[in-house]
Amino acid sequence: MEELFEEIILFQKERDWKKFHTPENLAKSISIESAELLEHFQWQKEYNIDEVAEELADVLIYCFYMADSLDLDIKEIILNKMEKNALKYPVDRSRGNAKKYTEL
Amino acid sequence: MEELFEEIILFQKERDWKKFHTPENLAKSISIESAELLEHFQWQKEYNIDEVAEELADVLIYCFYMADSLDLDIKEIILNKMEKNALKYPVDRSRGNAKKYTEL
Amino acid sequence: MEELFEEIILFQKERDWKKFHTPENLAKSISIESAELLEHFQWQKEYNIDEVAEELADVLIYCFYMADSLDLDIKEIILNKMEKNALKYPVDRSRGNAKKYTEL
Amino acid sequence: MEELFEEIILFQKERDWKKFHTPENLAKSISIESAELLEHFQWQKEYNIDEVAEELADVLIYCFYMADSLDLDIKEIILNKMEKNALKYPVDRSRGNAKKYTEL
Repeated sequence: MEELFEEIILFQKERDWKKFHTPENLAKSISIESAELLEHFQWQKEYNIDEVAEELADVLIYCFYMADSLDLDIKEIILNKMEKNALKYPVDRSRGNAKKYTEL
Repeated sequence: MEELFEEIILFQKERDWKKFHTPENLAKSISIESAELLEHFQWQKEYNIDEVAEELADVLIYCFYMADSLDLDIKEIILNKMEKNALKYPVDRSRGNAKKYTEL
Repeated sequence: MEELFEEIILFQKERDWKKFHTPENLAKSISIESAELLEHFQWQKEYNIDEVAEELADVLIYCFYMADSLDLDIKEIILNKMEKNALKYPVDRSRGNAKKYTEL
Repeated sequence: MEELFEEIILFQKERDWKKFHTPENLAKSISIESAELLEHFQWQKEYNIDEVAEELADVLIYCFYMADSLDLDIKEIILNKMEKNALKYPVDRSRGNAKKYTEL
């Protein structure tokens, strides 16, 4: 992951894009790319896996830039969030159902 | 990254949630969580870094589930996309400007 | 408004698109078009008013189809929501500040 | 519609919120509310019509504020966009199919 992270940051550095990559602009960008991903599931069940993979990659790349811009460690924030989720969704009550924790 | 990935999949398995995690449902979920991230930048410049970190983690977790549901390797799709982006945004023409590749 | 509504529905009928316009598909479509609108504010302060107007119209058109698909009256749901908002955001406490009602 | 529009603007004026309602902030808000609407269709087919109506109203209210902030006439921009859409989606080629105009 570190190696991947470094490549993404190098790409940004070469283009001098860090100045555009404010947390706010990246939050907008993540939403925009997510919608492009969703577009592949707008009307039909079929999708082109290569196109979907590209859109998913775009969302991830902006997430990595966001983590960098906020000095966050991706592994750490995911593990922290999963710990919280484990409390909100205890196995016995959430098993096999998709209810929100507020309705469990 | 592999270790992290395994933890995320274990969480899903314990709750028997894979049946809800269709590519379409995950695409919706990524959009929904992205908007919750964006909400922290809706009106003001200030944000709470811990809350932002949690929302960013939520986006990432769903992205990991999506990669799993489509049998995609995260590292591979990111590197592939960055190769494409490098062609769309050559250093000399995109350096220091935020124009879309269609307008470069 | 009624006249406008009729035009929008006629457009749909002529193309036999009502079968695609399920509430779920329209909810996805509204999110997708909203992101296209947001894209005009992704990196820069300048925007092209005609392009923005088109994206805003797309969001509105899908909202109208959604109201139709759910048999909702647009005027009524807006007035109802504003009544609720007036209680959540009393003039004296929300005047001039952008805090969420949960933080007022 | 004019009457409705006036009510929405009065609500804003009473709270002195016009200063927050920049086109950019409203574009973010429309995306955020759209995702809240989409959340009702995230995992299940069932939805609560009253909750969905409220979220749809929120999207519409922000769209109205956006039209106001950009001095756009809602009826006019919708009719203009539908004219364009009619050219992109001619009845004979788009009838009964959900393909994007680029693939027709």
